[in-house]
Amino acid sequence: MLSKSRVKYIQSLYHKKFRDEEGCFVVEGPKIITELLSGIPNNIVSLYAVASWLQANQPLLQQLDPSFVYRVEEPDLKRISSLKTPNQVLAVVKKRKPEVGSSSKASLILDRIQDPGNFGTIIRTADWFGISSVICSADCADLYNPKVIQATMGSMLRVGVTYTSLVGWMKENDGIPVFAATLHGKSLYEFPAMTGGALLIGNESRGIDPELLSLCQDEITIPRIGTAESLNAAVATGILLSHLIKP
Amino acid sequence: MLSKSRVKYIQSLYHKKFRDEEGCFVVEGPKIITELLSGIPNNIVSLYAVASWLQANQPLLQQLDPSFVYRVEEPDLKRISSLKTPNQVLAVVKKRKPEVGSSSKASLILDRIQDPGNFGTIIRTADWFGISSVICSADCADLYNPKVIQATMGSMLRVGVTYTSLVGWMKENDGIPVFAATLHGKSLYEFPAMTGGALLIGNESRGIDPELLSLCQDEITIPRIGTAESLNAAVATGILLSHLIKP
Repeated sequence: MLSKSRVKYIQSLYHKKFRDEEGCFVVEGPKIITELLSGIPNNIVSLYAVASWLQANQPLLQQLDPSFVYRVEEPDLKRISSLKTPNQVLAVVKKRKPEVGSSSKASLILDRIQDPGNFGTIIRTADWFGISSVICSADCADLYNPKVIQATMGSMLRVGVTYTSLVGWMKENDGIPVFAATLHGKSLYEFPAMTGGALLIGNESRGIDPELLSLCQDEITIPRIGTAESLNAAVATGILLSHLIKP
Repeated sequence: MLSKSRVKYIQSLYHKKFRDEEGCFVVEGPKIITELLSGIPNNIVSLYAVASWLQANQPLLQQLDPSFVYRVEEPDLKRISSLKTPNQVLAVVKKRKPEVGSSSKASLILDRIQDPGNFGTIIRTADWFGISSVICSADCADLYNPKVIQATMGSMLRVGVTYTSLVGWMKENDGIPVFAATLHGKSLYEFPAMTGGALLIGNESRGIDPELLSLCQDEITIPRIGTAESLNAAVATGILLSHLIKP
């Protein structure tokens, strides 16, 4: 059985304040944990799994110090999980440090994307289109929120995400043309593939901050054919990237 | 104060079984209810709102029989709402009957889309691209599930959604070319605009049923540039529609 203090520590990591203090977060489920063990096992601080999972994954687990690995029963797993139906294995993982200089290669910029599902789905979509670095305003959803991690489907391990002041970033990187996704710009069908530029996506209901918008090179729009008032932010990001980034 | 039996009745409508029996469902929030009152007020069976909302919307409410309208206090609204933070107004609404014959005009077909958020977002995306009718396998998420309604952002009032056996539908409509979204088909960049055809989207993890797939004319794929294993179903639908349906 896990000690009370350990259970409390893991539960505390479901709050951003504690994640920021500890530099750690929680990931859950066999799929992402297998990816972690194959890719960056040294980032795993501790791992909690049911006996059957541990048995089935012995070879992978050899990369971990055995003292990091805890066999738990279902009730304990339930206690430390954020899911209604906990999924065999859970790990506490060290946050990556953002790579120095990576930020200037970004081709996706997010302004105040607040829904964790949208934010995670956008990171997953960026990964599909080969974007390795995403720049976010400080008030976007937290990458280490369990719902965000779930929605990224593992892509949070591959895409670098940097939180910063977007106005500051755009002023420092004013050689990079930024295209703002709005409802009243040029049709995406008229835009050539984006080489070296960046796409800016705004808040789900309020759109892009006016000061940021004034720093953009152009506005790009998905023409509306029917009657919906708007598109979901992740769907819009996918549509725009599929037209701007071609294989 | 609302009677116990009325509260119970509304709460029962959060279960598919009762929605099917009663032919009614619940919608919440000023935006969609304003749309309902402007568009199809006769479908509203009863409406529950806080005093301030009723006062601000008097002209619209004149279309309703006054006996259908209930002024409620916050605690009662909370009792009948499916939301953590109830939003001023809620209504019980009659389901639409699917229009006869409309099904053959569909240009979007959904096979076992199970996540309510994905399902609703796909209906919203279809509405953006002018698709007025969507054909769904019987085991897709229920259009009248509160999470689906929320994700459609009002589009569920405009897009006709029919649940049926897809194999049966495809055999009956074999003059309509159906393009299956898969991971191993032709690149979407090679497809011309879809005129008179239909796009088929499969289950989030299991894809398209093999029997259905064998009835399709062709497979269409969004080329992967990066490393994500897959795209979210709603994002993929948006990307494909933006290439297949042009203004």
